[in-house]
Amino acid sequence: MKKGYIQLYTGNGKGKTTAALGLALRAAGAGFNVWIGQFAKGTACSEHEALKRFDDLITVKRFGKSFFIKGTPEAEDIVSAKQGLKEVEEVLEKGDFTLVVLDEACIALHFNLFSIEELINVLKKKPEHVELVITGRNAPQALIDIADLVTEMKEVKHYYTSGVPARKGIEE
Amino acid sequence: MKKGYIQLYTGNGKGKTTAALGLALRAAGAGFNVWIGQFAKGTACSEHEALKRFDDLITVKRFGKSFFIKGTPEAEDIVSAKQGLKEVEEVLEKGDFTLVVLDEACIALHFNLFSIEELINVLKKKPEHVELVITGRNAPQALIDIADLVTEMKEVKHYYTSGVPARKGIEE
Repeated sequence: MKKGYIQLYTGNGKGKTTAALGLALRAAGAGFNVWIGQFAKGTACSEHEALKRFDDLITVKRFGKSFFIKGTPEAEDIVSAKQGLKEVEEVLEKGDFTLVVLDEACIALHFNLFSIEELINVLKKKPEHVELVITGRNAPQALIDIADLVTEMKEVKHYYTSGVPARKGIEE
Repeated sequence: MKKGYIQLYTGNGKGKTTAALGLALRAAGAGFNVWIGQFAKGTACSEHEALKRFDDLITVKRFGKSFFIKGTPEAEDIVSAKQGLKEVEEVLEKGDFTLVVLDEACIALHFNLFSIEELINVLKKKPEHVELVITGRNAPQALIDIADLVTEMKEVKHYYTSGVPARKGIEE
């Protein structure tokens, strides 16, 4: 891979995690190794089932536990997220994965599971050839500042507001 | 699947096609049949290579030819796009695919390869159980009006403006 960058997908609209999944799919299609760390997906979703077909190229780790559902992080959630960030650091230091995704890392920041300083210190370990993708609403300005590409997914219209629950295979 | 909706991903930012790919991956993970029609992807990209692993669940068709590169559609591009829309109609009428993606259909509209009226007439054929996803910048208001979920991908910061060409496995 040529020089890699930091991509950030934030905003209140749909499409952040799915865009990261699409990037993972495309990278795997080019034969790249992909590492995905999910910071707020406590339970297995349909995407994990699908990604099993890429277990030679795509590694998925989940660090969130219960807080995403309950809305309040517990001690074990903080431990889990900090452990996740430690793993990201190791993954970046080794440089074996061409694409590294930190899914919902902004959610982890928002809930103070780790600090923006801790995250930025880890991002500094990114080798030049690695593409790094971060998702999650409420990205802090400091993260926007260091990202090379920032897309805001803006909710224009959403049927959830009409009370549609999450559907298997579509939202989860 | 429960009731399906029309999702629209538009705007000038990155992540529209990749979000649709992520949705396709998730749907396939749930065992759903997926049909993807691409209206402005003339050449094979890394994602097509990856999607081969889902040839039991995901069907990909490409209808764009040269216009996306040249910027000016030729007669064969219009024929190809209209043929694509005809196929979308058949796919919706049959209802065999739970997720149907019209990638870059807004680009086809923008270049007048088919009209918004033609597209909306086809969308009216969507059976209730089918989820339909449309991508592309410059979505016309009439399309926003009939969509259930609309996300605007807004470019906040983009390294392309610093002159980075499209990279295999990342952008294509």
